[in-house]
This record gives sequence, C-alpha cells and structure tokens, in this order.
Amino acid sequence: MSEFYTKHQATLHKAIEVKKTREYWSAYPEMPSRKIYGEDAAKDGLAAFEAQLNNDFKLDNKHPNDLGLLGAETSPFGFELNIKYPAASPTALIAASKEAGKSWAKLSLNQRAGILLEILSRINANSFEMAQAVMHTTGQAFAMAFQAGGPHAQDRALEAVAYAYDIMSEIPATASWVKPQGKHDPIKMQKSFRLIPRGVSVVIGCSTFPTWNSYPGMFASLMCGNTSIVKTHSGAILPAAISVKLAREVLAEAGIDPNVVVLAVDTSDAPITKGLVQHEDVKIIDYTGNSAFGTWIENNAPQAQVYTEKAGLNSIVIESVDNMRAASGNIAFSLSLYSGQMCTTPQNIFIPKDGIETSDGHMSFDDVAKAITVSISKLLGEPARANGILGAIQNPATYERAMAANDQTDGDIMLTSLKPENQEFADARQAGPVIIKLDASQKDIYETEKFGPISYLIACDDADQALELAASGAKNHGAITTAVYSMKADFIEQAEDAFAEAGVALSCNLVGNIFVNQSAAFSDYHVSGANPAGNACLADTAYVANRFRVAASRKLV
Amino acid sequence: MSEFYTKHQATLHKAIEVKKTREYWSAYPEMPSRKIYGEDAAKDGLAAFEAQLNNDFKLDNKHPNDLGLLGAETSPFGFELNIKYPAASPTALIAASKEAGKSWAKLSLNQRAGILLEILSRINANSFEMAQAVMHTTGQAFAMAFQAGGPHAQDRALEAVAYAYDIMSEIPATASWVKPQGKHDPIKMQKSFRLIPRGVSVVIGCSTFPTWNSYPGMFASLMCGNTSIVKTHSGAILPAAISVKLAREVLAEAGIDPNVVVLAVDTSDAPITKGLVQHEDVKIIDYTGNSAFGTWIENNAPQAQVYTEKAGLNSIVIESVDNMRAASGNIAFSLSLYSGQMCTTPQNIFIPKDGIETSDGHMSFDDVAKAITVSISKLLGEPARANGILGAIQNPATYERAMAANDQTDGDIMLTSLKPENQEFADARQAGPVIIKLDASQKDIYETEKFGPISYLIACDDADQALELAASGAKNHGAITTAVYSMKADFIEQAEDAFAEAGVALSCNLVGNIFVNQSAAFSDYHVSGANPAGNACLADTAYVANRFRVAASRKLV
Repeated sequence: MSEFYTKHQATLHKAIEVKKTREYWSAYPEMPSRKIYGEDAAKDGLAAFEAQLNNDFKLDNKHPNDLGLLGAETSPFGFELNIKYPAASPTALIAASKEAGKSWAKLSLNQRAGILLEILSRINANSFEMAQAVMHTTGQAFAMAFQAGGPHAQDRALEAVAYAYDIMSEIPATASWVKPQGKHDPIKMQKSFRLIPRGVSVVIGCSTFPTWNSYPGMFASLMCGNTSIVKTHSGAILPAAISVKLAREVLAEAGIDPNVVVLAVDTSDAPITKGLVQHEDVKIIDYTGNSAFGTWIENNAPQAQVYTEKAGLNSIVIESVDNMRAASGNIAFSLSLYSGQMCTTPQNIFIPKDGIETSDGHMSFDDVAKAITVSISKLLGEPARANGILGAIQNPATYERAMAANDQTDGDIMLTSLKPENQEFADARQAGPVIIKLDASQKDIYETEKFGPISYLIACDDADQALELAASGAKNHGAITTAVYSMKADFIEQAEDAFAEAGVALSCNLVGNIFVNQSAAFSDYHVSGANPAGNACLADTAYVANRFRVAASRKLV
Repeated sequence: MSEFYTKHQATLHKAIEVKKTREYWSAYPEMPSRKIYGEDAAKDGLAAFEAQLNNDFKLDNKHPNDLGLLGAETSPFGFELNIKYPAASPTALIAASKEAGKSWAKLSLNQRAGILLEILSRINANSFEMAQAVMHTTGQAFAMAFQAGGPHAQDRALEAVAYAYDIMSEIPATASWVKPQGKHDPIKMQKSFRLIPRGVSVVIGCSTFPTWNSYPGMFASLMCGNTSIVKTHSGAILPAAISVKLAREVLAEAGIDPNVVVLAVDTSDAPITKGLVQHEDVKIIDYTGNSAFGTWIENNAPQAQVYTEKAGLNSIVIESVDNMRAASGNIAFSLSLYSGQMCTTPQNIFIPKDGIETSDGHMSFDDVAKAITVSISKLLGEPARANGILGAIQNPATYERAMAANDQTDGDIMLTSLKPENQEFADARQAGPVIIKLDASQKDIYETEKFGPISYLIACDDADQALELAASGAKNHGAITTAVYSMKADFIEQAEDAFAEAGVALSCNLVGNIFVNQSAAFSDYHVSGANPAGNACLADTAYVANRFRVAASRKLV
C-alpha cells in the first residue's frame, strides 16, 4: 500500500503548505469539464446514478447488515429514488468498527495518508455520479451539486487530512534523553512515542451537504487512526453510500479490513443516532444539523469528543454602498443560491431606517429594499438561470415555512417567493426568497432561525444599531457568516472588531462573482467555534489535535 | 514591553525546538545552588517566607477584594502559617478579569510571550522562597519542594507557552487569495485572520502540587490571550499567591491591567469553586484534584473548555528482574517519595504468585515482597534521609488512611508505616509506605485509589494476568504511570502494546536515580488524556489548540 503514499505525497504536502499560507489552492478541479474528468464522465455519471435507482445498493459482504435493507429517499426534484441500503444496528456497526480498528491503528502515518488520498482520488474521479447523487438527495442544482458535493468537499477532506498529518508527524517516534548529573555519568533514556487513536468515530451527516459537511470529520478521524461510522441523514444516503463504497474498495485493495469505514442508515421512524452517539465505545462524534439535536449531543455524550456545526443567524449590515446595483446583485444571488438552504446564507439584513449613502447619492430604506428585491426578481426572472441557482428544497417543512412566510403579517412582504418554470423537473419543490421588512424591535421574529428562503430587511435607528444587532445576534444565537457594506474604513474596522468578538467570518463589500455563502478550503475557516453556531472549525488544529493521544514508553540505555 | 520578548526569545524558541525533539532540556536550573541562584538566595528565601508568617499577604490595590481577608493554612510539618489573603467573590473576580482581558487580548503574540517569560524568570529568581512556601503547604521535603515547586514547574509553564506560541504563530495575519477565472480576471481577495481568546479562564489548584499542576493551564490560557483566575486549594494558597503577585508586578510594569491574573481564595467551609466554574463567563477550566470533583466539572460546565488531571491506579508489573537489589531499591524510593502523594506514585504491584526469574535465579513471591520491604526499611532507616524523602503528609485524612491500613485485615501486612525521627519538625505528620499483600481476586480493594503511602503487592496467576490486571485497571479506572520489570523483550513489547492501549506512560526496568514518578518537561507527556485519570496532557497540541479561535475578515482587492 506504500505506492498510494508515493502517488499522493506531493498533493498532501502542498495541502500542508497551503493551509499555512491560506492562499488559493484546490487539489480537485471544480469545473465539470470533459477535458479534466474525461469525455464520457458526465454521461457515465448520470448512467451510474440511473442504474442505481429502484435497486439495492451493493456493499461488499464484510459490511455489517443485521437489519436487512433500508432506504426511502425522495428527490426534491420530484421522484422516488427507491434505493435500499444494507442496514445494521449500532451494536453490529460498532463491533465491526472496533475489530477493523486494530489493524488500522497500526499503520504508519504515510500508509494511512496514502490510503485516504487514494480514496479521495477515486471519489474525485466519480464526481459526476456524486453530483447526481447530491442533486437528487439535497435538491442542489447540478452545477452546485457537482462543486459543493464533489471537488469542494474533497478539498475539505484533504484539508482535514493535512491538518492531522501535520501535527502527528511533528511528534517523534523516539527520543534520546540524556540528563547531566554533574560529576556522575548522565542518565540516558531511550523514549518512544506511539500515536494512539481515540477509537470508533461517528460522523452524523445532514440532508443538505451530505459530503461537504461529513468528509472533514470523517477524514480527520481516519487520519488519526480512528475508524469511521458514517451515519447518513435518512433523506440523503446515496452520496455517503457511494463515498463509503469507494473507501472500502481502496481499503480492501490495501489489504485492510474495509470495516474501517462503515455506513449507518436508518429511517425517520426508527432512528439509530442516539443509540450510536451514547454508546460507550464511540469516542468521537462529528455532527452537522439542527441546533437542538447538536446541543443535545454536546451535552449527552460525555464519553466522546464532540464536534458540531449547528445553525445561526447570518446577517448583512448595510451602512453605505459604493455601487448599489453591484451590491444588490451580489446579495440577491446569496439569498437565492440553493434557496437559502446553506448554513452560510444571510437571514437578517440590517439597514438604517433613514436610508444610506451611496456613490450615486442618498437612498431611502425602501430604495435599498427595492434594489434588493428587484435584483432577486431579475436574477430569477429567466427560468433556466433561476432553476440553476435555486435548485429545489430538500425538506417539505422548509418549503411549507417559506409558503407560510408569504402570507405572514408580522412585517411588510417586500417580495413573495418566486417559482420558476421547470421543464426538466415539473414536480420540483422550488421557492425563491421571501423578503420581509421588519422593525429592529421585532427580535422575537428575526432572532429565530428560519432555515430556507426567508430573509428579513430590518429597519434600524442607524448603522451602529445595525452592527450591534447583527453582532449580538451572532454572539447569543450563533452565526457563521456576515457581510458588511460600507464605504467608511472606520466602520469596517468597527465591524471587524464586533464580528471578531462574536466569532463570525466577515466579508466586506462583496460584489461580482464571490459570495458571502462561499467558504474556500485551505483559506477560509468555516465556523469559528466561538459562538453557538458550532463548537468546531472546518478545519483548524483544534479540530484534529484531540482525535489521537500519545502513549509513551521509556527505558534506561 | 517589547524588551521582555527580546530578552527571552532565545529561551522561547529553544523550548519550541525541544518540545519537538523531546530531548533533555531545562530552562530553569533544578539545583538549589548558590552559584546559580546567588550566595544569599537560600537565606533570603527563608527570610521572605518567615516574614510572611502571621501576616497579611499584600497584593496591589487593583486586586478585587470584596470578601476581606481569608486564609487558614497549616504546615504539614506542624505549625499554623496564619497568613491572610485578599479574598474576592466570583462576581468580582470575573468582572475584573473580563475588564483586564480587553487589552490583554490585543497584545501581539510576542508581547504576551515576552511578559509571560519575564513572569517565569521572576518566579525562578524567587525559587527559594517558593520552595519554603511549597514545603509548608504541601508537605514536600525541601529538596523536592524546590525542584517540583520551582524549576520543574517553571519548565512546565514554559512548555505550555511554547506549545501555544508555536501553533498560534503558524496562522498568518493576512493572506492574499487569488482564484483564477479562466479567461476572465481572477478573483482577488485580501483576507485577515485574528486570533481571539476564549475569555476568562480558571485554574483550580491542588494541595500537593500547587505550582507544577497549575502553571501549565494558567500559562497556556494566558499565552492564548485569555485572562486567568488562579483558584487555590484552601490548604495551599501561598505558592499561588506568590506566583500571582509576581505576575501582577510584571503586568503592571508593562502597562497592562494586572487583573489579567487574579487570585481566588476560599476556605473549606465556604468554597467558591462551583460558583466560579459554572459562571457563564468562564470559558476555560483547568483542574487538578480528586476524580469525583473533576468528573463533576467535566459534566457540569458546558460553557467552558475543561482540562482535567484526576486520579488513577498506577501500577508496577514484575515479570522477571535482572538485578533485584537495584530494582527493589528503585521501587522503594518511588513508593516512599513524598509519602506516595504524587499522582504518579505506584499503588498496585502485580507479581506472579509462583515467583519470578532473576539473573541470580528464581525468587518466590515472598522473596520479591521481602526485597521491596527491606529496601524501604533500609531507605527510611536513616532519619535524615527518610525525612528528606518522605516529607510530610498534606491532608490529615491521608494520614488517617495510612494509619488505618496498618491495622487492616484484608491482606497480609508486609510492612507497616515507618515514622522517622524528626528533630527539625517534631510535629510533622509523617508516614512511610504501608505494604499489603493481596490476591488478584481482591479487586474491590486494589481497584480503589488509596491516595498516600499505601501500596499492594498482588499475587497473580502469572505474568500475563499481572499485565492484564494492570492494564485493565488503568483503562477502567485511570492511571498516569506504570512500570514494568522484565528481562524478556517480547514481554516488554506486550506491555508496551497493553499500556499504550490503556493510555498509560510506561517505564521499563528502571534502576538507579530515575523513577517512575518523575515526568520531565519537554520530553515526557504527563497524563495521556486517554483514560479516566484525566482528559488532557501536560502538554501537547490538543492542550492549547482550543484555548483560542480564529476570526476572519475578507475583502475584494
């Protein structure tokens, strides 16, 4: 298996270098291009996906399977996947995982890194099949499903491997310790240090980003010598199942027990997650999902290291704007992309009630609101483009919430949800952003997370109050991203201070083809771990450093 | 304050280097030598200590002090210290700490590192006074109090600073991110990364190692920009108070609010620790002490990062011995040193019931037992030497437990506790090890921690059972150290595997002047964090990586 390391070592070491410079880099090309992925890649990926529909998903015979076959996924684009997956109980999964862990823990760092990068390389080669799988479980439009579910997720996995490899390889296998004793002979000891894994890890995936949010914890744990139980959301199993299958193929080729990586599936009426996370042998848990269950895990799995990404109140603060058309176009895209189902989508847009300055003169609050709603309407006015941006809505409850928001009476409806014509998927569950005007006093409404395509334009006394409300909302309720528009350098500085204290990643004056929702591997720290939106960052040193321990032995020489 | 960094940077960078090579190094000389510490250092240190007795301990006026003066320390060597310390409520301490944190967080890494190393340098210069303070609160004999309470503790503090500085300085302050866009202009962003502290930290000291066990958490938190509330054990306040006083002097000289470091004292009838650790503004807790309270903190302070060192069942496994006199002499010292009050003292000695092989032939179980008890009796037979090794017993309850063990009937008493004559301190609370023979079946007795000078010789079916019992005891109940004696390379390997899995630091075939109890800064990882003896290691990357977070800001260029 050492050839895997040889094959991928340059990629690994480049990743280690770039996570320190935090410059732009990507190991896996984000363009769904024939030149890169092969002439037939798109066609083959679609065919592989279609062949899977109405079929049983095959994993090798070693995979635990005491619960038969399970699965009831529905594409948000309007059809049943009807795929059944090998299902196993927590007991069977953990037993298989523990057994496989014995040999996995004994591999060298290079052996493990080589295998993991080979897995990523195979996943990358299957990016078109993955794009279909992600699209038809999450509702992401194809282009986004390809990028976020494919290369971007693979980059985040590689980043996690790089962080873990980097700090583990800093610890010497042996040390010679020679302590002077004055006139006497020195005391000489030979010390050896062994990196020991925590044990079994469980990664709990979400229904909207089943690869991007699951790979970092999974690959970080694996690099540190732990085994991984990949617990999928019952609505988005296929992307994880493909990943697990490819991982197991590489493990088996390397002569390793493939149960180092196992798939855990359940249905919404018979969930197994609580049984998994509270099992005494589960030592690491990575969770992405809603805040209530994430907080429950943080407080109810004391036997495990717990890493969470939950939800929050992302915001935009508009103090002044250079070019409103450029800014509102950028904001419109951020609110529309994947119908607001990103953990980085802005919900609350704070605007001074007396309006703002722009390079073209003063704009009233209503002018600003109109600039945003007009931009959204234009962006989504052309059906093909709208479908490509909005995708479909994963969860019927999210859709219902958006529909209900169209009719609510707490504030003025500035824009109701648009539904583009969709010739390809007539039954797609789709909805553009609902935009509602609120007053700063209506905290009870805007300080509750409304996951999906609902955003508020909040009229504030002034820009200082806007900033204060955005920062305090983040601090108290969590937030992952925030955007600020201001032509004043001192206001930007004030915002940097406020959002640093609140632990939110800030984007300033974004226009053009870069959006507050986007978080780039190797460069952007995703989630600060410093507010209630999550206790961990994808990825940093803290994310990996406690997934292994050091056991020492020393002898006199 | 930049001159502090200039003065100490070579020391800091040497520490960073050595924590990676894990070779022998010490920044602060462990010899209580006049040549090193000055002709009058010993005399001055004693005078400073004596001047403090029956007096109020003075901290500057800025220190919170809403609870008046408190303190009721008694020297285990038999007299009241009668020192009163400025006392403050959790509310007052946290308010002062938060306020001071505002400016502390803004300092550069070099500024903070310079100040912290200057504090350590001042503490080092006061090592003789510290030795008296540690001796007369913990009961450590002078030589040990000097080393463990002084230079060794200072080295551990420096190590923690080095770990924190190293990973923090890896994160760039800014990055230029340029993403190609095919034929179009690249997207160029300027990103900035700010290291943000968690906030207020609390370090909870123990009564036996009030500096060695408190400095690492305190200095790690401070290096990461947090403030530190130093909560002392009510029986061992003075060493922490001297440390806090020196820290505050350096902070004030540097123009920093001295409340970055504050002292928290209480009495056993009015404890404040729970109020401190559950306060919503306390974000980091370092704890050393008994397992029950440590586990309570782990489970009841969800708002904080919690790092614990608790208790466990350290062991020795004797499979075979080359030179029994050398081995038993080494073991005798380990059991006797500080009357078994170290978290690294062996409690359970597992020996095959049919005896063992040595280079001088077979020895029966009773022969091995006798070799150990005779070595202890010889070691403690000379009063001056015995007093220098045993010191005194910190807690009356520990003493009572040892006395009760002398009379117990669960197993054969192989040696009762020796009390050396003590001319200097006639009222010292002293007791040598009680050695009791048990059978391997008597787990209910030996799998309970008996803190202090009580050790068991446990008759096992064979060496494999001895190893299995030692390792499973560590895994299930925690352990920090273990020692193995064997002439067989394959048994040593088997032990290395078993204790690595149990997360215990192993010492093999120790003889001469190096002991299983000793843990050297920069080289030995103290506590693995992988068994119930504690969740953290002094020190490793995991110990520091989550004491700060990263806040990012990005702008288009």
